[in-house]
Amino acid sequence: MTSSVPDRRSPCPVACTLDLIGDRWTLLIVRDLLFGYRHFHDFMNSPEGIASNILTDRLARLQTLGLVQKQNDPTDRRRITYTLTPLGQSLRPILRTMADWGLHHLPGTREARSAPTTHPQS
Amino acid sequence: MTSSVPDRRSPCPVACTLDLIGDRWTLLIVRDLLFGYRHFHDFMNSPEGIASNILTDRLARLQTLGLVQKQNDPTDRRRITYTLTPLGQSLRPILRTMADWGLHHLPGTREARSAPTTHPQS
Repeated sequence: MTSSVPDRRSPCPVACTLDLIGDRWTLLIVRDLLFGYRHFHDFMNSPEGIASNILTDRLARLQTLGLVQKQNDPTDRRRITYTLTPLGQSLRPILRTMADWGLHHLPGTREARSAPTTHPQS
Repeated sequence: MTSSVPDRRSPCPVACTLDLIGDRWTLLIVRDLLFGYRHFHDFMNSPEGIASNILTDRLARLQTLGLVQKQNDPTDRRRITYTLTPLGQSLRPILRTMADWGLHHLPGTREARSAPTTHPQS
């Protein structure tokens, strides 16, 4: 994975982690993947309203970093699915800690969407 | 604090937390504050090389959000110190989780700087 880590600013593990996932959109895509969303339109339908070009860019970057894998949907091979690799799954504690902080300190926040129900296979 | 939270994208606690701290620099300033750095030049000397205008902007934003307080240095009232509020201190677990992830998954990372030694009062 080292070769795909661009422009490290320092050996600090916080800085290096932020170099990978420290933008306003990447962790929201990881959040949706952890919820079980798999298709491009699922991420597009998130309430934060990500733009399609940003989504395309961040999914490609997550693949390059080895955090996401892209495959043909086994139930419909014309469709593409995105899933977290084991390395991507390992980001879960970071998301959990952020969610806990927000729920505790930011009034009006609530646990986000659950797993998709409209597309049981997705 | 609600009034100082700009442009919430959704009620998701991850999204709202990222709206506050989800950029490549803010959490590094919080990291340095957790290490005990207090003066503008301390943050400027971090190995990531933050630009002074970005540092000024992020410190002001952290103050607006209630995460940082700015005071005259009690040992030299011409100097300004920045310290975390209790709310800012509560971000520590997020930093810790990111550091743990980086240390475990990103070769070449190591625990970052310790508390400042050149300015014991700072």
